[in-house]
Amino acid sequence: MLSKSQIKLITSLKQKKYRLQHGLFVVEGIKTITELLQSSFKLQKLYTTKSFKIDANYNADDEILISETDLKRISFLSTPNTALAVFEIPKSTKIEASGLTLALDAVRDPGNLGTIIRLCDWFGIKNLVCSNQTVDCYNPKVIQATMGSITRINISYVNLEDYLKHTKLPVYGAFMEGNNVYQKQDLTDGILVMGNEANGISETIETLITEKISIPRFGDIQATESLNVATATAILLSEFRRRN
Amino acid sequence: MLSKSQIKLITSLKQKKYRLQHGLFVVEGIKTITELLQSSFKLQKLYTTKSFKIDANYNADDEILISETDLKRISFLSTPNTALAVFEIPKSTKIEASGLTLALDAVRDPGNLGTIIRLCDWFGIKNLVCSNQTVDCYNPKVIQATMGSITRINISYVNLEDYLKHTKLPVYGAFMEGNNVYQKQDLTDGILVMGNEANGISETIETLITEKISIPRFGDIQATESLNVATATAILLSEFRRRN
Repeated sequence: MLSKSQIKLITSLKQKKYRLQHGLFVVEGIKTITELLQSSFKLQKLYTTKSFKIDANYNADDEILISETDLKRISFLSTPNTALAVFEIPKSTKIEASGLTLALDAVRDPGNLGTIIRLCDWFGIKNLVCSNQTVDCYNPKVIQATMGSITRINISYVNLEDYLKHTKLPVYGAFMEGNNVYQKQDLTDGILVMGNEANGISETIETLITEKISIPRFGDIQATESLNVATATAILLSEFRRRN
Repeated sequence: MLSKSQIKLITSLKQKKYRLQHGLFVVEGIKTITELLQSSFKLQKLYTTKSFKIDANYNADDEILISETDLKRISFLSTPNTALAVFEIPKSTKIEASGLTLALDAVRDPGNLGTIIRLCDWFGIKNLVCSNQTVDCYNPKVIQATMGSITRINISYVNLEDYLKHTKLPVYGAFMEGNNVYQKQDLTDGILVMGNEANGISETIETLITEKISIPRFGDIQATESLNVATATAILLSEFRRRN
């Protein structure tokens, strides 16, 4: 049985301001919940229609059996799964200054951010730096799209301008009119910046880019104007990694 | 003013069976409608809250001014644009046996298919061959995700097994355990097959693949199990193209 205050708390977590206020976020789907339970993320409460009984570091008292009707009340999905979990938002750890870091300048679409987090996991990118204008990674749609990858990536929200001003690493940026990435002999470790879906990299951030790179287009002159930011990120991360 | 029969026809086009029955599909969003008007696609009717007045090959009589209330009645979007157009589904032209052809084995997600059509346009892939189990490319969500690219790609729905049985071209397939694509000296033109979101390439199709290729994973052992089919397609098309 769910209390009114539990329902109120959980449904409030749809909004970023309440996620920040409570330091909590919601995860749905058994696969993703299991991945989070088996990671360093701390469970607040697990609401489920049947017991999980998995080997993971959480207190059995935090698992609450509920009816399907109650699950429908708290779920953010039109077709709810069999469980919903509330986890604590972890403190982000210090951004490492080694390896390749991906930085996002105001990526707004939750599906794109989720896909990009999954790509970081695939390509072994440990640090993802997001401008404060980037969609919140604890947005339920982002969590769903990451397929559990969020447990393995250190994600920081920063003032991107300040962050880039204080780095000594090369800062690559994806532009339509950059150097052909295929023709680059080497791509050293550093920071790769990807821009907003509609506007690309902002003017302020552009001044802090040390090398503009681009993915050549092979179609007709009339061809599509740009690649989606998630597919462009996929291609550029692949280009950095294949050289090693 | 919209008639009841017009409203009934348009709203029925949300479903594939009525799209096939009438040979019509719906497009929303001024940018995509304009791209289709300026292409070889044939307009059936354009419903708009203000006149388009663009240089394109359509009959002015087919442009019907309607109120915002009427647009809300026929729109498939929760926040309708200012126009909705109904176009005729074109007959697919013969699949060319030259260049690189992309083939999809039961890709189900409309957003993924839309993104893949946009990628074909970027990378100059003229022919996209879809198994009959692949989501319909005239699904409104696919059309929206293609951003107009659908006008420049020849898309065919076929019995994929029959199609691959009758080709003499090399047939590449994306697998988790294929040859490392980065280490391939050359990737000749042929057919590249991408599989279903959950199950990959089906067993029947697998027997017709002449070379299995894969994108290496760089993360931890625990890392994400697979790449999304659209991002994997992005990386593999980039790998075919950068070698030319």
